Formats: sequence, structure tokens, C-alpha cells
Amino acid sequence: MTEQAGSSLENLGRRVFNRRLLAGGAVVAAGVTSMSVAGSGSEASAGVSAAVAPAGGAVRHLTLYAEKLADGQMGYGLEPGKASIPGPLIEMVEGDTLHIEVINTMDVDVSLHPHGVDYEITSDGTRHNNSHVEPGGSRTYTWRTHAPKRRADGTWRQGSAGYWHYHDHVVGTDHGTGGLRKGLYGPLIVRRQGDLLPQKTFTIVFNDMTINNLKTGPDFRATVGDRVEIVMITHGEFYHTFHMHGHRWADNRTGMLSGPEDVSPVIDNKIVGPADSFGFQIIAGEGVGAGAWMYHCHVQSHSDMGMAGFFLVAKPDGTIPGHEEHAGHAGHTEGAAEGSVEESSKSAEGAARHH
Amino acid sequence: MTEQAGSSLENLGRRVFNRRLLAGGAVVAAGVTSMSVAGSGSEASAGVSAAVAPAGGAVRHLTLYAEKLADGQMGYGLEPGKASIPGPLIEMVEGDTLHIEVINTMDVDVSLHPHGVDYEITSDGTRHNNSHVEPGGSRTYTWRTHAPKRRADGTWRQGSAGYWHYHDHVVGTDHGTGGLRKGLYGPLIVRRQGDLLPQKTFTIVFNDMTINNLKTGPDFRATVGDRVEIVMITHGEFYHTFHMHGHRWADNRTGMLSGPEDVSPVIDNKIVGPADSFGFQIIAGEGVGAGAWMYHCHVQSHSDMGMAGFFLVAKPDGTIPGHEEHAGHAGHTEGAAEGSVEESSKSAEGAARHH
Amino acid sequence: MTEQAGSSLENLGRRVFNRRLLAGGAVVAAGVTSMSVAGSGSEASAGVSAAVAPAGGAVRHLTLYAEKLADGQMGYGLEPGKASIPGPLIEMVEGDTLHIEVINTMDVDVSLHPHGVDYEITSDGTRHNNSHVEPGGSRTYTWRTHAPKRRADGTWRQGSAGYWHYHDHVVGTDHGTGGLRKGLYGPLIVRRQGDLLPQKTFTIVFNDMTINNLKTGPDFRATVGDRVEIVMITHGEFYHTFHMHGHRWADNRTGMLSGPEDVSPVIDNKIVGPADSFGFQIIAGEGVGAGAWMYHCHVQSHSDMGMAGFFLVAKPDGTIPGHEEHAGHAGHTEGAAEGSVEESSKSAEGAARHH
Repeated sequence: MTEQAGSSLENLGRRVFNRRLLAGGAVVAAGVTSMSVAGSGSEASAGVSAAVAPAGGAVRHLTLYAEKLADGQMGYGLEPGKASIPGPLIEMVEGDTLHIEVINTMDVDVSLHPHGVDYEITSDGTRHNNSHVEPGGSRTYTWRTHAPKRRADGTWRQGSAGYWHYHDHVVGTDHGTGGLRKGLYGPLIVRRQGDLLPQKTFTIVFNDMTINNLKTGPDFRATVGDRVEIVMITHGEFYHTFHMHGHRWADNRTGMLSGPEDVSPVIDNKIVGPADSFGFQIIAGEGVGAGAWMYHCHVQSHSDMGMAGFFLVAKPDGTIPGHEEHAGHAGHTEGAAEGSVEESSKSAEGAARHH
Repeated sequence: MTEQAGSSLENLGRRVFNRRLLAGGAVVAAGVTSMSVAGSGSEASAGVSAAVAPAGGAVRHLTLYAEKLADGQMGYGLEPGKASIPGPLIEMVEGDTLHIEVINTMDVDVSLHPHGVDYEITSDGTRHNNSHVEPGGSRTYTWRTHAPKRRADGTWRQGSAGYWHYHDHVVGTDHGTGGLRKGLYGPLIVRRQGDLLPQKTFTIVFNDMTINNLKTGPDFRATVGDRVEIVMITHGEFYHTFHMHGHRWADNRTGMLSGPEDVSPVIDNKIVGPADSFGFQIIAGEGVGAGAWMYHCHVQSHSDMGMAGFFLVAKPDGTIPGHEEHAGHAGHTEGAAEGSVEESSKSAEGAARHH
Repeated sequence: MTEQAGSSLENLGRRVFNRRLLAGGAVVAAGVTSMSVAGSGSEASAGVSAAVAPAGGAVRHLTLYAEKLADGQMGYGLEPGKASIPGPLIEMVEGDTLHIEVINTMDVDVSLHPHGVDYEITSDGTRHNNSHVEPGGSRTYTWRTHAPKRRADGTWRQGSAGYWHYHDHVVGTDHGTGGLRKGLYGPLIVRRQGDLLPQKTFTIVFNDMTINNLKTGPDFRATVGDRVEIVMITHGEFYHTFHMHGHRWADNRTGMLSGPEDVSPVIDNKIVGPADSFGFQIIAGEGVGAGAWMYHCHVQSHSDMGMAGFFLVAKPDGTIPGHEEHAGHAGHTEGAAEGSVEESSKSAEGAARHH
């Protein structure tokens, strides 16, 4: 599980949201965004503490570098030499367009194939459609998104909002089996105007028998009360079941109930297979408090072999009950650079967003 | 993926719908069916271009032949010597009753077991219930369906509408493992009055490591703007994930959003296991245009071994951008009789339905 | 499939519901609970035949014994020497608190880990959190539940209602792989005030290649018209698909449609993996009549190896059409103590609940 933060990423997602919200300050002040979330006047006035996704429609440009990593793996990165596994979190709002120039610094063909968004066949990222990138070359892929809209025949065209992902489709085989195995994948979130923004977003990818290509699951950290978003993606060969201790979510588009009439199942365990993706937001420690809450694949041999990590929820004073004395727990390496990343810049931005 | 069309099939489904719609023309003219789809008066008057399922209640009779195919496989067919894999698409509307006489032309016991519909234990199709057919024999199975209805205790009995399927339950083992492996399965759609009718319906069955018992997935063809329905069924031993490029659907009863308040997840990838079935309607190339859009199992070794095909979406002039020059793409055989069937008769009927 | 009944269990669930309903008789008479279910006045007055879950808020204490069984398996039980596989059905209503003292009569560490409910990290049941029970020791675990509630920021916190389960997390490995394999698991239902109560509840656990740790699936019995609840849980290594003949359910929180606008898919087959759980209520034989209705895993090799049993739905006179003459059906052992349990006490209580 890798927290999606850092200065590079801000150029993609958070900063854009902030800029928009600041630019549209009058609208926010007029209560439009709070209405989208809260509905009821009295409660909205009391509880407007959450930022929401602004209107879409922006056109952005982005450069993504496909690179070999020191350990023989491969990754996408926003700057040369900064590739990561998973690749950077890409966020859009319905209506946005994103032009992504992929620069291939490797010695094999690579590509970029997205799930969920609208793209013409020239941005398919498949060899058949001749939309891959040769070694040393570059290619611009265009992703568009759209809000829900009623068609002329009266039916509804669903919007692009969802917890999606992107990956290579040509390394190793024409289905990108080699690229996926080595790490060429990343999360893509398309939000709907008015969707609640989290304070932190973590990405968990069950890729064959690894989590984010690590032999044991990384930890991630939050404080009780944080609004945390999880993006869960699966790749490779195997089916898995994703389980979190002490926290649950709704099995629907947002992972949150739309209201008391919402019949979506509430679950804490979900079967997944390659290229499945979903996401949800939770309030860290809500109703259960601080602690080292395990998350893991619940296929018994998979968790036994290391497909497990911790969602470390601290008290406001930073302590995690019962955790410190067990730091050397079996089959788990905590504090690795990839695993346990404390967020800082985003919190500051989160506050800014509320103006 | 096999398109479900042809003169035999018309006797089952389309023709019945047309006859009903024509017979009930006064009702259609009065706006009942357009109301079911569109709701809003002004938009309905502008956009009534889609046909919908009529009221159920018909009683039909059908003969199904269980036959050995030339290559050692087995199939169901509507006429002697016309068995196919998958078997013919059977469509019903909630309230319909279907009596199916199964004629066993093979030298082993066979049966017919449906999912989704109402049937008495004598139509179970299991050996335990003595409801199979001996070699050279015949047996009539009765399937009933019903609309949603409030029970006396205030709860709702769900209707029969859904994307279902039928299959043998006795060849090889008492669970029909041999019959399923050889091809004794087919799609069954139960529609609700007012459900939108597609212009084309394609059936995709992931059966062990095949698609529709073919070593590589068949292609299917449409033109940009066609309302295409996919019925996706799984059989055999393995789990799979069904993925389509460039197109998405809602993970609910119809595969389409009921409106902007519908919280169903929108997905383009879904984990499935044996006897799972679902379906959805898409507008070919909507927002993405013409192209050779791949569909495949996203379990990497499965797609690499051939579980992939193309949804070929042509421009109105019949061309498919970027496709012609790659006709000989690896691991894929296009144009096989089972694979790439151009529809004609149904389009004509589709127009007739709108009167 | 084991019916969850018996005198011990009554102390947990049914008796509490009865006591509450009796205690709150005036409220029931005033129509509050029938309104929750039926909604429409005229139909409610005609059809108030179903009992519903009362308001939550009770605090209960329970003792659970973790024991070795004679055949080398392990189970949880409500009294010494009464452990069963699955363990006893535990029912709560949103708002209830349950303190469970686990007494470990075995010679290895054991624990209790729940899904779905609220528990502090000290009730996690993991070795890392030092919340297991040593041989000969005891430990009290506390589970809390809550109703849906709007948060201060306007979003909804989902309630605890759901079809959940509990299991060991330390026997064999730190993920309880050994404990689960031997039988240390059981069903947990959290109901919402107003949720319809079934007349019978059956638990089916696909645990590796067994059902409820039995080599062939147990049978369970009902009479046409009974409101039967199924709790379906999966554990172990494998994925499965759960299928029932002649009966279907909605793939949502309750397994029942909330009304005609509910877009939940109606299914009779569902893919599941370890630690997944869901449940639903059906009316035995509704629209299909009495019979020996098979339920089974639809992965072909799994059903062929014995993952199948019968839902025996009798006519009011007790007969099951076509069943008696096939009592010795292949691969299936009927009438084992674990398998086919006729309910009696609960029916009597069911009647009492309607006053």
C-alpha cells in the first residue's frame, strides 16, 4: 500500500482541485458544494468540513516516463528517475480531458492502457492497434471523461466516475503480462462533481502473490478521524479476497452509502480477480479507535505467505495502542521506504481546500 | 461470442415481440411503452426511438434437439442438424410460460436445467429427480416466469427478469460436467415489461479455457451507435475476469443505470465463476468511436492462451480504423463461421418494432 | 448446512427477540413494526404475519467454549462439550453490545475474530495485538454495533447490519489457517430494526472442499411457504460458486428486494472466496412447489467431489415428491446427525413472536 502524495503528484490532482476551488470560491461560499454533500440545510451549515470535487471540464497535459528500476522491475513516473510501483495516482473529474505523453526510456516496447475513461482506438495501448511506444520513443494518449447524461432515447449514459486503473499492454505478451508483473500499473480515480474528497488516498495492488510488488504488505498511517480513501486493484494470475480489520465499506460506486435507503451490501471482505478495481472512503478508527489494524488477502495460504500489512491508526498524540511492543511481528517488515509513508503536504492542502 | 440471430430464432423471441407490439399497437401509440423508458414527457416525445419489451403472459411451445456435433462436441438446436454452441438464445417476458420438448438424438442421457425461471421439480433436469431424457427419447420441460409482486406479508417477491442460462445436468456426471464441457449450454434472457430491447444480442461463454468452446475468442460486429446487448456466462472449472476495451456497464440487473441516483458501480471488468451470468447493453463506440475493441479474460495466462476476441465497431461506411492492416494479428482467427456473423434480418425487424 | 436451533441458542437470539417483542407489545400493536415492513396501510392490515427485529440497545453476555472434537476437529460451543461446526449462530440488532467470554479448553492458543461489528483493538483476536487466549485461559471480547447515522459532515455512516461471521485467527498460523481448517468458525447476523425475521436460519460454509467440514453437503428441511434464511460463508483456499435450484435472491444487503425500484441483480449463483459472507431469505418452494432442490458449488469438479446437498421442501403433509424413491442417491449421505435436522422449538417460538 503506497500513499499517493508528494510534490510531483500535486501537479496532477490535488493542486488542480485546490486551484479550482479557490477560483470558484464564490460558488463554494454560496453553498453549492455543501449542498451536494449534505443536502439538509441545518446540518450542512453545521457540518461543512469536507471538500468536494469541483466541476470538471479542464484540459491537462502530463508526461509519464516508463522506466526500468534498479531491481529489474519497471514503473511509471512523473519525472525521469522517479518511477514508482504503483505508478502515480491520476485523478480526474467527470468532464476533464487528459493528454499523457508517455516517454519510453526502456529497451522494449511499452504502452499505456486505461480502464474506465473514454479514449479513441489510437489511445488503446495495444499492439494490434499500433498504439504502443517503441524504445526511446514517445506517444501521446488522450483520455476523456463525461458526466452522466440522458440520451435522446430516454436512457441514461453512465458517467465516468469510478476507481479505475492504467497499465501496460505490450511488455512480455500482447496482453502486457510481463509489464504488469514487473510493476507497470497505477491507480486512476475519476470523481463526480460534488464527490467528497479524502484527506489521504492509499493504493493497494494485489499483483500475483505480492502487494504493490512487495513480498510483504506495506503499512500505511493515519490518525483517528482522518477520512482515508483506499483504491484496491488486482493484477496477475490469481483471485484474492481483500479484507480489512475493524473497518467496512459499501459495495457500490463510492464505497459509501448514499443514504439510509441505499440497499448496497456493507462488507469488509471482497473477492477480486485480475484488472478488477474498486475504492471506498473510511473514517480511520471510527467506532473502534486507534490500533494496528491488519489488512490482508483472506485466502489462507496467501496471507500466510505475506499478503498482509497494517493500517496503523494513531491517537491524536501519535501513539498506537499495543503496537510498539510488537514491532518485530512475524512475516512483516515495517518502515520500508515503500511501505510506511507519512503524509504532510496533503494535509496542508486539505485545509486550504476548505476556504 | 456468437450473435444470436437467424430465422429459427425469430420464432422464439423477436417475432413474438413484434407480433405483440403490432397486436398491441393502440397501447404503444398511447405512449405506454415510451413512458416506461423515458419518463419525462418532453424528452419522450423527442426521443422515442427504442423498442421495449411488451407485457408478458404468452404461452409458447418449443422443440430443442440435443445432438452430437461433427467434431465430437454436443449442442442444443431448434431444428435437427442445426445444433450450435452456445445453444439458441431463448427470450421470455415476465409472465410468459415456455414448454420445451427436448428430443435426445444422442446415445447418452441428456437433460435441460435452467437458471432463474420457475419450474417444478419434474423440470429440474437432474438424475436424482428423474427428469432427464434417455437416448432416443423426449421430455417436455416447463418454465414459468413472473413479474415482481408484493406478498401478503408486505415483502416483495422479485420478478424473474435477468440474464440467465440453461445447460445439461447429466452428461458425464450427475452435475453435467461432460455435457457442459462439450457445449450443452445456452443463454436465457427474461425481460421485464418496458425493458429496452437491443438491436443486437451477443453471447459470450467462458467455458474452461475456451470462449464458446473455441480456442480463440470469436469476433462480433456492430456499427457505431448500435444498441448492443452482451450476455456473459461462465462454465467449467476456472474463475475468470471479463473485460471489454472502450466500453463499460453498470453492475446491476440491466447493466444500465436507472437514473442519476443509481449507486451501482460502473465497471469494465468483472470476476466470474462457473454458472455465473450477467448482461448489459452498450451503445457501440459511444464516446470512443469506431475501432477493433478487444474483449478478453483479464487473467493474464488465460488471455495469453487465447481467451480474447474483438468487438469490431465500424463507421457508418463500414470501415474499421486501423483494423484492416492488422487482420493477421497473433493468436486470433477472424472470420470463422462461429465467430464473425453479420446481422441483417434483425435490423429490419428492429425497424418494424418501432411502429 | 446446519440448522441453527436448540435450547442453548435460544438464549442468544430468538428468546431475546421474543422477550423484546413481548415487552414492546404496545408498540407492535400500534403498527410500528408492520409499517417498517409493509408500508401501505391496507396491505399491512391484511398481511401482518411476519415478525421483525426490535430496536437494538441491549447489552448481553455470552460464554463460548473453544474445544477439540472427538474426530480431531475443533469447534466453538455455548456449553462445555457442545461445540459444533459451524459454531452457534450469533444474532444482534444494530445498537446491541455483546460481551463474549471465550474459554479455551484446548492445548493450543485460540482466539475469536469477528467480521462486520465494531470492536476495539483489544478484541481483534490476533496474535500481533496480543488478543488471543492461552490454553486453559479465558478472555472477554466485546462486540458493539450501530445503526446508520448521518455524520457531522453530512455523509452517512453505514449501520452494522449484515450477514457476518466469526473465526479463530491464531491456530496453526497467525492468520488462523489451522483453526479455520478444523472448524473454528460460525455465523453472525446483525439485523436492523424492522428487518424481517425468518422462521428458520441455515448456515452453509464452503470450507476448502467441504461444506461445514463435511465431505458431502448436509440436507436441510422446510415446508412449502416457510420463510427460510440462508447464511453463506466461505473459508480456506479456494473460490467457489454457490448455486441453489429453484430459488433465487437479490444480491444486496438483505437478499430481498426493497421494492420495485430496487435495481439489485436477482441471482441464483454467486462467486465467493475465503471470508466472503452473504445471506438472504426465501419462501421455500415459492412458485415451484415441494421437491428435493439441490444446492451445490457450481465449480464442476467441486460438485462432482461432493460439494452438494439438498434443500428438502415438503408439502404440508410432509411428503417430498420424487424424493423417497431416490434416497440412496450417489455421492450423498442423508440423515447424518449434522446434516438433516428437523426444527421444532423455533416454529413454536415463531408463532409466539406474532402476538
